Amino acid sequence: MKLNIAVLPGDGIGPEITQQSVKVLKAVADRFDHEFQFDDALVGAAAIDLLENPLPEATLDLCHKSDAVLFGAIGHPKYDNNPDAKVRPEQGLLKLRKELGLFANIRPVRTYEKLLDQSPLKRERIAGADMVIYRELTGGIYFGEKSTAQDGKSAQDLCFYSEEEIDRIAHLAFKAAQQRRNKLTLVDKANVLETSRLWRKTVKTIAKEYPDVELDFLFVDNAAMQMILNPTQFDVILTENMFGDILSDEASVIGGSIGLLASASVGNKNAMFEPIHGSYPQATGKGIANPVASILSAAMLLDHFDLTEEANAVRKAVEVSIQLNVCTQDINKDNHYTTEKVGDFLEGLIA
Amino acid sequence: MKLNIAVLPGDGIGPEITQQSVKVLKAVADRFDHEFQFDDALVGAAAIDLLENPLPEATLDLCHKSDAVLFGAIGHPKYDNNPDAKVRPEQGLLKLRKELGLFANIRPVRTYEKLLDQSPLKRERIAGADMVIYRELTGGIYFGEKSTAQDGKSAQDLCFYSEEEIDRIAHLAFKAAQQRRNKLTLVDKANVLETSRLWRKTVKTIAKEYPDVELDFLFVDNAAMQMILNPTQFDVILTENMFGDILSDEASVIGGSIGLLASASVGNKNAMFEPIHGSYPQATGKGIANPVASILSAAMLLDHFDLTEEANAVRKAVEVSIQLNVCTQDINKDNHYTTEKVGDFLEGLIA
Ligand SMILES: CC(C)[C@H](C(=O)O)[C@@H](O)C(=O)O
Ligand SMILES: CC(C)[C@H](C(=O)O)[C@@H](O)C(=O)O
Repeated sequence: MKLNIAVLPGDGIGPEITQQSVKVLKAVADRFDHEFQFDDALVGAAAIDLLENPLPEATLDLCHKSDAVLFGAIGHPKYDNNPDAKVRPEQGLLKLRKELGLFANIRPVRTYEKLLDQSPLKRERIAGADMVIYRELTGGIYFGEKSTAQDGKSAQDLCFYSEEEIDRIAHLAFKAAQQRRNKLTLVDKANVLETSRLWRKTVKTIAKEYPDVELDFLFVDNAAMQMILNPTQFDVILTENMFGDILSDEASVIGGSIGLLASASVGNKNAMFEPIHGSYPQATGKGIANPVASILSAAMLLDHFDLTEEANAVRKAVEVSIQLNVCTQDINKDNHYTTEKVGDFLEGLIA
Repeated sequence: MKLNIAVLPGDGIGPEITQQSVKVLKAVADRFDHEFQFDDALVGAAAIDLLENPLPEATLDLCHKSDAVLFGAIGHPKYDNNPDAKVRPEQGLLKLRKELGLFANIRPVRTYEKLLDQSPLKRERIAGADMVIYRELTGGIYFGEKSTAQDGKSAQDLCFYSEEEIDRIAHLAFKAAQQRRNKLTLVDKANVLETSRLWRKTVKTIAKEYPDVELDFLFVDNAAMQMILNPTQFDVILTENMFGDILSDEASVIGGSIGLLASASVGNKNAMFEPIHGSYPQATGKGIANPVASILSAAMLLDHFDLTEEANAVRKAVEVSIQLNVCTQDINKDNHYTTEKVGDFLEGLIA
């Protein structure tokens, strides 16, 4: 297969981890006889520094005409602590998601037997946990109208959802449940929010088309608690943008490190693959960032094009590396490997 | 001291747990020679059933003229699963918070040595965790304009904050930090939300008045992760309404049971005390609900009126009961006591 892959390393540890997943994808191409073409482009703080634009036109163009986007990370402390900044790195990511129509962000969460004791949670609570979060990615309070009053003394963000926005991701989530354990949990705050009531109503209607999937509902506050108390209860979680952001970061503790969590963002035409961790500025350049989340995102990229054997080879390699303790310091405190060494090892296993 | 206390048992397990805290407060009054007068009133689903109004006028009047409100719980599944219901129990609670001007919801989270092994989290992660969450309670997306389009095909909720709303709770939170370990963490999503940027800016300005308090910032997704990874890092957490709702329920796992978590909601004139758990409909009438959250809320009520010795007596009694395993089944699986028996035991310790 021939694939054009846009590579957007972004900020902080983005470049160093993305380098490893590109390496792994190249090894996959070699071994399975594919032709993957990689093109780099600027995004985030890196793009602001050079072009005063977190998502330059050239980058967006490249993404549009590529088959897939491999994304690193975005964000820089110099913007976080400046509430008055007019341009911010995150705008680049949000605009990219919107422009590419990536309405569904898919975040699988699982455990590795070898890492069960790494988790802050007790082994018996998490053993066997295996869920996937379907987070709506181009709507809600992230994209509703926002403004600050002229006098600077008040501000507002609008959370808006249409039935159609809920519909399209709900169908994906139900279909995923059918391929898994046939359970879907909608997380909302329907006892308070009008948008949540629309979610609940719409999803209930769609559920009739999937009679083999058991649907249940959780308020987001309760879900945040259940995620830790009893994570094995979840199969597919479906939720809106902001709740999905919070819950998926929270869920990262189950596996033992956020450095293991991959994601795919898909729409009707485009698809983007990115680790769920951020730019982790304190770690930049130190060789301590875990490349596995990016590499597993690359596996999701392969899945997306039905390259199942290839994707499984990547996942298998990751399992072997974890089994053998070839891991960065977030999961191997004593004898840790650098970002690059882990990448090399995985590349070697696949080649 | 003479205190008029409005008692609003509400729904589900609300009545049975509130009965225990009233019992405990009566024991306190006897022992310390106070005069506490209790007046019951309807709220929530219970009030809808009888009066088609989740917050009847008479209830609101009573609360206004009382010195404090002791609140049980609110919510009923028959409303949760009906997105079209016009009247819902939660409206009663939200209106009460708004009408009484209870802008700050204070939720302490701690561990008990004896219960460290109850938590789904590993002992070494949580030992010593001791934080208090200041959640803004009368603003944000809970109270912004909300609507559903005429055709029912879209909906919206507005998140609005003014500087003044942020100001008043921030001062309370900084003052609390000064009485504790001098650390305040603002949780927001300033990389995406305009309201969060207003929070960050306003809180930064106020921080200058509290040079002895160390201020830091966390994005809410990261906070949801840090809460589990490293809960001992937190002293005072300050956050907006929705994030506070989610984070405080999540934080309940640290102590081992949400049945232990109390809260105080305060404003300029009124104050209300309620457990953070909900109405727990499945447990209603079974005698399995933990009354401790409500009883510790009663202790916060005593604190509010500077009855420190009295409040400490209640907390001490709770510690003894936990030490001796006189607990409901959420924390004592083998040899559990009923809601009432735990209440009786605590009453006896205080009397
Ligand atoms: C960087 C930020 C805007 C982003 C988000 O909130 O969506 C990130 O946290 C994520 O989850 O991908
Ligand atoms: C019942 C509900 C409206 C309420 C809230 O979300 O504020 C509850 O979850 C709480 O935290 O007190």
